Amino acid sequence: MKAILVYLLLCISTFSLAQKKFDQLAEGNAIRTVLAQQVADWNNFNIEGFMQGYWKSDSLLFIGAKMTHGWDSTLVRYKKSYPTKEAMGVLRFEIIRLQFTSTDACLVTGRYFLQRKTDSPSGVFTLLFRKKSGKWVVVYDHTS
Amino acid sequence: MKAILVYLLLCISTFSLAQKKFDQLAEGNAIRTVLAQQVADWNNFNIEGFMQGYWKSDSLLFIGAKMTHGWDSTLVRYKKSYPTKEAMGVLRFEIIRLQFTSTDACLVTGRYFLQRKTDSPSGVFTLLFRKKSGKWVVVYDHTS
Repeated sequence: MKAILVYLLLCISTFSLAQKKFDQLAEGNAIRTVLAQQVADWNNFNIEGFMQGYWKSDSLLFIGAKMTHGWDSTLVRYKKSYPTKEAMGVLRFEIIRLQFTSTDACLVTGRYFLQRKTDSPSGVFTLLFRKKSGKWVVVYDHTS
Repeated sequence: MKAILVYLLLCISTFSLAQKKFDQLAEGNAIRTVLAQQVADWNNFNIEGFMQGYWKSDSLLFIGAKMTHGWDSTLVRYKKSYPTKEAMGVLRFEIIRLQFTSTDACLVTGRYFLQRKTDSPSGVFTLLFRKKSGKWVVVYDHTS
C-alpha cells in the first residue's frame, strides 16, 4: 500500500516537473522573434531569409487567394507575387493573439500591413507554429 | 536500485497507456460529425443549431471580412449576413485536412460552398477545434 502511494506521489511530481518545464512566456517570445526576423528580412528585400520562418517541408500549407502546398512552392509563389523591392514594399506585423494548444504548437493571429508607393494592402493571418528540432516554425499560414 | 527501475517501468507504462487512450481516428470522426451537423442545421435554416458547433464563449474568435469576438456576436453576425432562407442557400463543406496538435486540439482545413438562387459563394476555412467538457467545438474560425 505504502509502495503504491510512493509510486503515485513520484509519478505526480514527475508530471508536475514536466509541466513546469514549459515556459509559455519564453516560448511566446521565441515565436515573436521568428516573426520579427521575417519582417526584418522582408524589409531587406530578402525573401529567402523571410522563408526561413516557414517549415521546410512539403507539408507546409499556405492559404492565400489559393492553396499552396510545400515550402518550395510557397517560395515560388512569394517570388512571383513580389518580384521587386517596390512590390515588396515595407512590411509590418501586428500580433493580436498567441494561443498555445500544446508545448509544441501555437496558433498565432495577426494583421499584416504593406506600405507601397501606389497602395497599402493589409489583411489578417492565422499561423500555426510548431516547434521542430527545437525551433519554432510556421507550418500553416492562412492569410486573407 | 531495483525500486527505481520498477518505478521507471511503471511510469513508462502509465505514460504509454495514457498515450494509447487517444484514438485519432475516432476523435477525427467526432469532429467530422460536428461539421456534418452544422451543415444539416444550416440547410434546415437553423442558425442557432449551426452555432452549437461553436464554443459558447467570449473567447471564440471568428475571422471573416472582419474580426468578430465571442459566441453572441458571432451569432448576431451570422443572422445579419444570412437573414433569409434564400440568403442561407444550401451549404456544403469539403474537409481537406485534420491536423491534431494535441489530444484536445485539432486544426481543420476545408472549403465551403453555398448554392443560392443568384450566386454560389465559396471559400476556405481554417478552424481550431478544442475538446471542451468532452465535446469538440470550434474555438476559432478563419474563413476567406
